[in-house]
Amino acid sequence: MGTLPTGSAFDAAVGSQPMQGPDPPASHYAFSPDDAGQLLTYSTFIFLQQVGFAVLESGSVRAKNVRNILLHNIIDKLICGVCYWALGFAFAYGDTKWGIIGTSNFFLGANFSRDTALLWFTSFMFLLTATTVVSGSLAERAQFEAYVAYAPLMAVVVYPLVVHWAVNGWLTTFAPKCIYLDFAGGSTVHLLGGVAGLVGAWMTGPRLGRFNGPEVKPIVGHNVESIALGTFLLWMGWYGFNIAPAYLRGTERSSIAARAAVNTTLCGCASALTALAATWWRSGLYDLRVCCNAILAGMVAITAICPHVDPWGAFLLGVIAGLVYLGCSKLLLHLRIDDPLEACAVHGGCSLVGILGVGFLARPDYIQEYRGTDKRICGGIFYAGHDGWQQLGVQALGAVVIIVYTGACSLALFGALHRAKRLRVDQATEIAGIDNIDHRGPAYPDFVIASHE
Amino acid sequence: MGTLPTGSAFDAAVGSQPMQGPDPPASHYAFSPDDAGQLLTYSTFIFLQQVGFAVLESGSVRAKNVRNILLHNIIDKLICGVCYWALGFAFAYGDTKWGIIGTSNFFLGANFSRDTALLWFTSFMFLLTATTVVSGSLAERAQFEAYVAYAPLMAVVVYPLVVHWAVNGWLTTFAPKCIYLDFAGGSTVHLLGGVAGLVGAWMTGPRLGRFNGPEVKPIVGHNVESIALGTFLLWMGWYGFNIAPAYLRGTERSSIAARAAVNTTLCGCASALTALAATWWRSGLYDLRVCCNAILAGMVAITAICPHVDPWGAFLLGVIAGLVYLGCSKLLLHLRIDDPLEACAVHGGCSLVGILGVGFLARPDYIQEYRGTDKRICGGIFYAGHDGWQQLGVQALGAVVIIVYTGACSLALFGALHRAKRLRVDQATEIAGIDNIDHRGPAYPDFVIASHE
Amino acid sequence: MGTLPTGSAFDAAVGSQPMQGPDPPASHYAFSPDDAGQLLTYSTFIFLQQVGFAVLESGSVRAKNVRNILLHNIIDKLICGVCYWALGFAFAYGDTKWGIIGTSNFFLGANFSRDTALLWFTSFMFLLTATTVVSGSLAERAQFEAYVAYAPLMAVVVYPLVVHWAVNGWLTTFAPKCIYLDFAGGSTVHLLGGVAGLVGAWMTGPRLGRFNGPEVKPIVGHNVESIALGTFLLWMGWYGFNIAPAYLRGTERSSIAARAAVNTTLCGCASALTALAATWWRSGLYDLRVCCNAILAGMVAITAICPHVDPWGAFLLGVIAGLVYLGCSKLLLHLRIDDPLEACAVHGGCSLVGILGVGFLARPDYIQEYRGTDKRICGGIFYAGHDGWQQLGVQALGAVVIIVYTGACSLALFGALHRAKRLRVDQATEIAGIDNIDHRGPAYPDFVIASHE
Repeated sequence: MGTLPTGSAFDAAVGSQPMQGPDPPASHYAFSPDDAGQLLTYSTFIFLQQVGFAVLESGSVRAKNVRNILLHNIIDKLICGVCYWALGFAFAYGDTKWGIIGTSNFFLGANFSRDTALLWFTSFMFLLTATTVVSGSLAERAQFEAYVAYAPLMAVVVYPLVVHWAVNGWLTTFAPKCIYLDFAGGSTVHLLGGVAGLVGAWMTGPRLGRFNGPEVKPIVGHNVESIALGTFLLWMGWYGFNIAPAYLRGTERSSIAARAAVNTTLCGCASALTALAATWWRSGLYDLRVCCNAILAGMVAITAICPHVDPWGAFLLGVIAGLVYLGCSKLLLHLRIDDPLEACAVHGGCSLVGILGVGFLARPDYIQEYRGTDKRICGGIFYAGHDGWQQLGVQALGAVVIIVYTGACSLALFGALHRAKRLRVDQATEIAGIDNIDHRGPAYPDFVIASHE
Repeated sequence: MGTLPTGSAFDAAVGSQPMQGPDPPASHYAFSPDDAGQLLTYSTFIFLQQVGFAVLESGSVRAKNVRNILLHNIIDKLICGVCYWALGFAFAYGDTKWGIIGTSNFFLGANFSRDTALLWFTSFMFLLTATTVVSGSLAERAQFEAYVAYAPLMAVVVYPLVVHWAVNGWLTTFAPKCIYLDFAGGSTVHLLGGVAGLVGAWMTGPRLGRFNGPEVKPIVGHNVESIALGTFLLWMGWYGFNIAPAYLRGTERSSIAARAAVNTTLCGCASALTALAATWWRSGLYDLRVCCNAILAGMVAITAICPHVDPWGAFLLGVIAGLVYLGCSKLLLHLRIDDPLEACAVHGGCSLVGILGVGFLARPDYIQEYRGTDKRICGGIFYAGHDGWQQLGVQALGAVVIIVYTGACSLALFGALHRAKRLRVDQATEIAGIDNIDHRGPAYPDFVIASHE
Repeated sequence: MGTLPTGSAFDAAVGSQPMQGPDPPASHYAFSPDDAGQLLTYSTFIFLQQVGFAVLESGSVRAKNVRNILLHNIIDKLICGVCYWALGFAFAYGDTKWGIIGTSNFFLGANFSRDTALLWFTSFMFLLTATTVVSGSLAERAQFEAYVAYAPLMAVVVYPLVVHWAVNGWLTTFAPKCIYLDFAGGSTVHLLGGVAGLVGAWMTGPRLGRFNGPEVKPIVGHNVESIALGTFLLWMGWYGFNIAPAYLRGTERSSIAARAAVNTTLCGCASALTALAATWWRSGLYDLRVCCNAILAGMVAITAICPHVDPWGAFLLGVIAGLVYLGCSKLLLHLRIDDPLEACAVHGGCSLVGILGVGFLARPDYIQEYRGTDKRICGGIFYAGHDGWQQLGVQALGAVVIIVYTGACSLALFGALHRAKRLRVDQATEIAGIDNIDHRGPAYPDFVIASHE
């Protein structure tokens, strides 16, 4: 990467000075104490998303699989922690080899400076979100060992490389006039998770009884309060998610952070109101589950673009995201793919709204606040006219690359597990509930459970 | 508003310099990057209150109305987001017209600067709390559409105007020697919510079977753990709520913030211990529900005054708040008003403790840390002697104005809905549970529900 | 304490300058506005631990004792708030008398400066955690009044004195070459809580039916989702817990904070993976409860040492903590001590891993970042060789002192309550459930409860 700033030239450029070009490798980050404090605070906030996912997913499955889904949500954090420390971080943020893979800072050992520690912690939080998305797609029928095998794939192979490409690798230097833009991980986190979830859900097959010929049988989660609580926690965690990156390299950091907070709010609200209204229009009912998922869909959609757009743009993207979520959700049912948490629709489908939305709605002056005086700042078609098409092309290319790479890796793993009969629990376990067979009994031993299944 | 600082004179006055006079319109705010960071962090913390309200209210209703109350708690956020973006914020913080209403920054469009974004985000969080309070008062019997109609009223008409008056409108310039003081929204958030809730609960009427002649039948919430969890989350969110304003205009910001944190804690503790002891005295039982509500009551009470008082004052106000909460709660039952979450008692009654408490206990030197060298700083009777009476009068006037205005608006809306028979669900729905009729079935489909109703 | 820096000499030393020697009394703290902001933020984060404990403990008991355990979790906060304001803080951080007890700042009155307020708020949060640990050990069988009597003991007698000794008292000046090191309260919070819990669990006796001759009957918590949610919240709150002290006195604060965040993560992950694997090895099952407790065990273990060690050291301590937790847990069952939440194993046993770990693995240069150029900086045997043995000795001495003092105080109180027959509920209450007798009925009135007990 000949274009990477190096040594003292780079050091002079960070801090209050605008940072130019692609992000540097880990060894070159240098946060001011103030930015370090903010970055650490918002990174910690992101963990609220992990709490939210656990509760949302637990509430969305049947009572007989609660221990199982919760263990999935816990074990992936543990595995990611160890794997990302040992290998993943080095691949993602180490000194680059041909813009493809990082090769230093294994075990955080060589250079455990403050800045490396911060960068590890922040990117670890993003990794956790990407990984957990898939647990929802495999819910209620995957073997525990299959999920244990999947987590390291994400932590070592998929996420680190995609991050490397998108943040300081070849995707950032590909096009002559513009950089691939993904502010907070619309592609490197949500698209990743959505695609891996889609492959996982497809390979694992639908839950027993979900599809009876042409008929789709609803399988309802056991606790609506958990669904709502999880959604609220994810909403709140999203402020951490979409604000933290402002302190990674922005030049007008509090300005970027404030705009991100407002746009995240508006896009989520617009998406959920759209989906709720559309559902009510068709059925005359107000569906809490749809409303909750559509909030997440809107926030996924804004993630890639959040500080680069005006509030009306965030609102518009939200409306689109609400419809895209409903459409994807319907499409999956049509394809007979059973995705219990609708992770593919929410994280996969709607992340594209924001990734491609950059090509239309990103404002060049806002991008400049984030990327400094980089020469390859372009913006969306709406502002940059003809050049905007190149931006749109770069965005589309990035999305395609991530879809293909993540899809291929996931297919290899889940396919192998499927062939080895290690992907799905046997029928008896699925009917009895995984909790009762693999995890020491029911999640709610003091309550009488209805026998409708 | 001829007394408003304008243009460069104002710009010179903000930042490290004390800010004088009433708060400026949105276009004049200018936060330092550090303050902006803190303000954003604490504003995000406030969202924890929304999580807390949702869980607390869900646990406080019967299992058959859980989906309904959660949807209320979600939809009001969505509506407030869009309405406050389009209109509300402009009315609250736009350039003032005669000190009565703001008239700029519709759709955040004219001036989407960092400072506008921050101010929107912070005040949006306060709006959410004000709005949500009412969902508890309408619980288990209101039509979903009625609540959907109410939310915009709060977001566009009630909250913005009250904020405008109290923060940079006529209330701040009324009295010759003192400013109306409400630090974190004791009046503009909690009194507002409490009054609107009272009107709503009264117009909607009691839940079926709540009052049988002279007898009051307890209707117990379905999940005590949710009540406790919600209370804890509200407690924690309150630190955001009562600390954030320190970074809006304080001159000794971290000093104000630290004092607010300590006093919030003490007042909540004193209130709950008082109420718990009083209840135990009468019944010999330890009542968790009373204890939880009394924590909230204490924190409501300190909100208006929190950094302006010494710890012993916070303790004293807490003891009073605990008793006021119990008294109001009893009074409402006596009046045959059924307020399922006791929002009127907690948010309405106890907010007055703090609003009026300013007239007794506010220390002039502490106020000065917040308002700078404003000439119209007075303080409570305890410190400012004779002048304190004017402060008390201004506080009382502010409270009366807010009660009357909020009451009138709420009465108009809920009255109209009542007349149009759009306020309350029909008896069959109420008995079956709103979830089963309007929201796709029960909240806990896997559990066997007791048939005591 | 002749060696305490005093007056202007001290004032010159704080802020950006390294702070030398033991921590000063409260009246000498002087935070910069930036540090004050960070300290307040992270202290607030710690409250998430209180939310986590409440939910975790609630989920870990049977449905018939949920109100009771939640009230325990609430009332101790209230009592600690008032007692620590009135007396505890003065004993902990007041001007010292012979290095044994503080004697100023009762009721926060003499010197309610910003820095005093901050220090109170931060140390109050740590007190809450120490106190709450014990509620788990007494769960499902202790009288409410016994717990009400215990909380002030912790808030006034045990915690304040231990903190005084370890932070600015005799423990810091005892050894010629090194200071007692406990970064975030491994000993002053967790060891304290674990020992008091052990004494409490032992004096109270096992729950009915827990031990039948040689047989140990598992008593399973009523709600696994709450256990997981509580663990996640504790995990997140731990970032506040282990980061906040960096802003109390560190000289390279953001560096210390970042390292603490990384090590906390790694140690928790390593511990849980170890315990999960060991349990699976023996039983072939994946036990969520063990996994959750082992996460906490790892985070307890790292608390005393977190920024003083490299990531590999944190990983190593985590592996040890996972095994120590399992061993202690087994030992307690062998001793026929029934500790429903395993607080003694998690907080007592595993805190020693970190306290003693300082004597092996603490890096002198990392300690220096925290303690400045203090002459009595030593480090662990691994780095400081022979001198490290003195550090190990000081650490062991500190642990023994805390165990003996806390044990004696707890024994006196719980012994007296036991003799007065005020410690344990009667058999009928225990069988019926404390909720039904003392707290106005069941926690889940709408659900049908299984009759297996």
